[in-house]
Amino acid sequence: MTHPTMMKEDFPVSNIRHFLEPGPIVLVSSQWQAQPNIMTLGWHMVMAFSPSLIGCVIAAGNHSHALVHHSGECVINIPSASLVDTVVSIGNCSGSEVDKFKTFDLTPGKAEKVGAPLIEECYASFECQLRDDAMVERYNLFIFEVVKAHVAPSADDEESLHYRGMGEFMLSGNTIDRTALFKPSMLV
Amino acid sequence: MTHPTMMKEDFPVSNIRHFLEPGPIVLVSSQWQAQPNIMTLGWHMVMAFSPSLIGCVIAAGNHSHALVHHSGECVINIPSASLVDTVVSIGNCSGSEVDKFKTFDLTPGKAEKVGAPLIEECYASFECQLRDDAMVERYNLFIFEVVKAHVAPSADDEESLHYRGMGEFMLSGNTIDRTALFKPSMLV
Repeated sequence: MTHPTMMKEDFPVSNIRHFLEPGPIVLVSSQWQAQPNIMTLGWHMVMAFSPSLIGCVIAAGNHSHALVHHSGECVINIPSASLVDTVVSIGNCSGSEVDKFKTFDLTPGKAEKVGAPLIEECYASFECQLRDDAMVERYNLFIFEVVKAHVAPSADDEESLHYRGMGEFMLSGNTIDRTALFKPSMLV
Repeated sequence: MTHPTMMKEDFPVSNIRHFLEPGPIVLVSSQWQAQPNIMTLGWHMVMAFSPSLIGCVIAAGNHSHALVHHSGECVINIPSASLVDTVVSIGNCSGSEVDKFKTFDLTPGKAEKVGAPLIEECYASFECQLRDDAMVERYNLFIFEVVKAHVAPSADDEESLHYRGMGEFMLSGNTIDRTALFKPSMLV
């Protein structure tokens, strides 16, 4: 099934927590020696605003582990809930056996600062450089710096997917505003 | 405002991803030298099933940073959306100035394996021991092992809070099941 590509605009890298901190499932695209791949990932967290750091656990058994480690780059893409079946299918096959962009009709886009491709069907794409691999061997923990962010104008209206395990996803719900309860200095 | 306490039952520590991977805001309770504290935290991720590892970034400026580091323990509690104003207020004051359990009418509960208190008003509480502090100095990254999990029978029906920054929270929405698309080996 083909999904529409989404036009995206530059977005401040120091503010990508707006999209990642709520905990959506993401698609990590990578490329090494002209071989691209995509993996589905739920184990990520924001670690700093500036530099914009994201921690990701990518299990050593994943084909993407080596691609990301060897290239030192990836793109973290956020799919909307309409892509759920593609997200699941990507997570249930290996890039050692299939070309996931072709198999799942996804469009690789040219990144600006990394060699890994964007996924054009996603509503947000964050270009990442591997900043610290000291914890890769012990915990499969990659610490990336987001060096360029692309976000669709519709991003705040997109429904995101949040994985619970055992084939079950939570969808994002309504937004509530508690600005009035914050100290101004805490509003970041 | 007083909120009801929630009876909780034992839950397998290897499966707490069910509650944490979707990315809820959590309340981290800690205690050191008889001084308890609570902080609001959005920067966490699952790192392994067994041992059950959770990574958390706790900025050095937080009063809880020292309490957690010195005691080597904490409890990660998940509040339902009905606690949103308490969650925000906890994040907007410092444990160096107020006793947050008393100020916010929260009930400390006795943990089984750590000295830090549970928060009885939350629907899930995970007792944690600090497993690795090698990245605390560089990134404020604490790697905890969950050694005991308590979950309310109603937990799957609770609405969770997901922080977007700037005073805005996403609420959890509906759940969808895609079990049928998974390989049996991927259903963990």
